[in-house]
Parts: sequence; C-alpha cells; structure tokens
Amino acid sequence: MKIKDLIFQIKNKRSFLCIGLDTDINRIPKFILNKEDPIFFFNKSIIDKTHKYCVAYKLNTAFYESLGTLGWVSMKKTIDYINKNFPEIFTIADAKRGDIGNTSMMYAKAFFENMNFDSITVNPYMGSDCVKPFLEFKDKISILLGLTSNPGASDIQLKKTNNDYIFTEMIKSSVSWGNNENMMYVVGATKPQFIEKIRKIIPHHFLLIPGVGAQGGDLNKICKYAVNDNIGLIINSSRSIIYSSNNEDFADAAAKISESLQKQMKVIISAKK
Amino acid sequence: MKIKDLIFQIKNKRSFLCIGLDTDINRIPKFILNKEDPIFFFNKSIIDKTHKYCVAYKLNTAFYESLGTLGWVSMKKTIDYINKNFPEIFTIADAKRGDIGNTSMMYAKAFFENMNFDSITVNPYMGSDCVKPFLEFKDKISILLGLTSNPGASDIQLKKTNNDYIFTEMIKSSVSWGNNENMMYVVGATKPQFIEKIRKIIPHHFLLIPGVGAQGGDLNKICKYAVNDNIGLIINSSRSIIYSSNNEDFADAAAKISESLQKQMKVIISAKK
Repeated sequence: MKIKDLIFQIKNKRSFLCIGLDTDINRIPKFILNKEDPIFFFNKSIIDKTHKYCVAYKLNTAFYESLGTLGWVSMKKTIDYINKNFPEIFTIADAKRGDIGNTSMMYAKAFFENMNFDSITVNPYMGSDCVKPFLEFKDKISILLGLTSNPGASDIQLKKTNNDYIFTEMIKSSVSWGNNENMMYVVGATKPQFIEKIRKIIPHHFLLIPGVGAQGGDLNKICKYAVNDNIGLIINSSRSIIYSSNNEDFADAAAKISESLQKQMKVIISAKK
Repeated sequence: MKIKDLIFQIKNKRSFLCIGLDTDINRIPKFILNKEDPIFFFNKSIIDKTHKYCVAYKLNTAFYESLGTLGWVSMKKTIDYINKNFPEIFTIADAKRGDIGNTSMMYAKAFFENMNFDSITVNPYMGSDCVKPFLEFKDKISILLGLTSNPGASDIQLKKTNNDYIFTEMIKSSVSWGNNENMMYVVGATKPQFIEKIRKIIPHHFLLIPGVGAQGGDLNKICKYAVNDNIGLIINSSRSIIYSSNNEDFADAAAKISESLQKQMKVIISAKK
C-alpha cells in the first residue's frame, strides 16, 4: 500500500483509527475457547464488526508467537482474511524487529512476502543497515520507534546527549535512511509534550501513536501537536477496544468503542479542513 | 540452565564456541531440498557432527520466520532435538525481541516456555520494563545488545553523550535491571577496541560475541580483552561454519571448522589457568 492510499482512506472514512489485535488466549471470552481456532475466530469477529470505523489493523506478533506454531497459523489466517476481504485497510505487523542486514532481510521476507503485511514496526537501535533491507520492498512501509509510550523510555531514549536527547538523535539519524513514503515513526501517546518536538524534526512523516486507552494517552492533546496537513497520524488502541466486553456481544462492544473513537476523529478531521 | 552449568561445560569441553544455525533454504546443499523438512534435516546433521566442539547453539529466528509457519515448525523441531539429545548445551534464541511489559512477557513465554530455549537476545532500547519480564523466568538468561557488530552501530550506539557513548550509557543503565546470573551482553567482534571499555563496566557478565568468521572478527584479539576469570564469553560463528561445504560432506566440513576453532579456544583456556 502507498501512503496516498492511506490518506485517501482516512479522508474517506473520516477516521485515523488503528485497532490493535493483541489477542490473548487468556483474555478472550471463554465461550470461544471451544472453537477450532479461537484466536482467529475472535479476530475475524472483531474485524467484521469494526472494519468500517478504522483504517488499520495492527497485529502484535508476540501474542501469536506465545502460542508457538499454532499462534503463527492464527496470525497468518488473520492477515490473509484482512487482505482478502478488506484490501483497502492498512496492516501493521507490530514486531519491533531489527538485526544485521542479512537477518533484517529475512524478517522483511517473513512479514512482507510470506505474510503480506503492508508495514512492520522496526527497532532502529542497531542502525541504518538494519533498517534498509525493509525499505527495499516496494509499497511497504517501515515504522521506526521514535519515542515509545512505556515508562522505560526514560532509561535510554530520554537520556540527554551533547545536542539533545537519544531519541531525537535517533530520529534525526534515521530520517535520511528512507523518506516519508516508506517510513513512519512510532510515538507514544503518553508523552504529548514531546510530540511537538518530534513534529518539528519530521513534519511530513506519518506517526503511529499507540497508548490511547489502556495506557492512558489523551486523544485531543495528542492531535493538537501531531496532526499535519495530511492528518499524518494513525492512533492505535488495542485492549480498550477488543476487550471491552467478555460476553457474547464482545464484537459489538468493540464496534461501539471504535465508532465512538471514529466520531471524535471525524470532528478533528473536519476542524482541519 | 544456570551460568555455573555453562562455565562447567566450557571447562569440560575446553571450548567457548557457539554455532549459529542461521539456516537459509537458499544456501543449504541442493540434495537436501527433497527431504521432508530440509531445514530440520540440515540442522540435525550439523548438530550431530558438531556438538562435541561447541557449548551453545544459537538459532537466528529470522531465518525460520521467513518461511512462515513451516519455518516455525522447523525451529521448534530443532530446539526440541537439542534439548532432548544434548541437554547440557546452552541454547540461544537470537530473536532481538523487546517491547512494552505485557508484550515482552508474551515473547518470554514464546521462547522460554513454548520453545524452551535457555536464553534470548533482547533489544534493550525501550528500557527496563521491556527487559524485566524476560528476567522473571527462573534459570533463563536475557542477552542484551551491548554493542553490535554491524557498520550501522555508528549511527546510534556509537554516538557521543554528555558522559560517554550511547552504548555505554545503555550498558550502565541496564546493569542494575538484573545480575550476572540472568543477563549477558552481545558485543560485536568487529570492534575489539571497545571490548576493553565494556569489560571495565561489566567485568563479571558473560559476553556473547558474534562476528568471528564471515563478519571478520579476530579471535585472539577479542579474547585478549574479553576473557575474564570464568572465561566469561561465548564466541559465535554461523555462516563460516555451517556453509563451509555445499556437498554431501557439509556436516563433516562444519565439524572440521568447529574443531579447529575449539582447538584455538583450548589454547586460550589453558593459558588462562
């Protein structure tokens, strides 16, 4: 998928919502557990009810890997289902991969070829040659960690350097590795005070902003600093959407929360015009 | 596995060699491709011939993931084979994982429970709460990126901070998250000038040193700075061992290179006594 297709979708759906499929076998409704593939059943139900409110789905690979081979099968079935039925939706492998060149190339093959995701989150700490293999794939997008939403961001990313912070040095270093057509950045919603700073360094790149919902980020506060002329951001919410009910109505409940977020986003998009 | 078991094994085998199973379907001998599971067949053949010369096997997860679900099956069969037949050998999931707490916990389950590896490589860039879930598993070891062997290390890790370098700040930050029983560090063999510096910060931790062989690191130079009283290091070699022949004798050829490295290591271990 190209960035322009994502922008079209955002304007068309009046939404910049991404739904995180962090599907945990211990948190899905109990009655699903007797299905042949409970994880896929849960995902399919959520997707069928929420796809009209969101522009992206993000699969957190850890949750699938924790179930071993069977989890990998559920992940593959989920991405295939989205690609077949909702090809307009932007898909993200939230995998935080990154390694030396020949190894990153293998990760790129895993998620761009074997799985056919539109994008992957990449940990850029190892440097340019670890990110470049991902950038070589046409119409695929690498989403680099800009500043993460967790408390531990202060351990390394927020340390001061001679010029600024480690995370700003990282963004400044990495910006030349690709362009705003094949790179985005993850920026944590829990740190709105830094979003303004980041927007000055990368005014035109899309931002993927997790942390709204369970992690406590505030939508309007974030958008104040993060929105650019193309909207330029995707807001991810996972747990607060997919686990909003533990009963038979779980997918309808997820749709309701998604719709409410979409309505808030519609206001923000309209105000921008 | 506990560190003391690894130290015992090093002294017993007079080796600190780790063999990297970066098994690439495009590089294994052609005659293997008609086997039921070529990747597992290749790994099993290499393991059967080399286990007496090494103390560890490192599986680079990217190479398995690139083949999708089938690759994940081959990885599981390989780790199960090592654990069943050579339980004394230290196993490493070279996965470079790391994410927010609940997600790192899922990765820990994937590699410590579902797969039963002894250790996993962890990218510590996101901070302490991303590493701690791995450290909570008893008798499992997290191997943090200290300084990597690739050229891109200079993009971020080798940048100067107010006090030192980003990579030394990272090591200093992370050292308090665990201890030298449950943490090791990856330190690239291609940068021996920094190994001395790192040893001053972490004199007692084990180091996992990749980059000898295909990446050009020099064994004696590295050991001069890296060896401590318990030897305290594992040297990994992947491509230069496992792809040393492309014919029927591939496993014997791998054993020959492994034996030659083990003999060099024996000299280093003996000199230390």
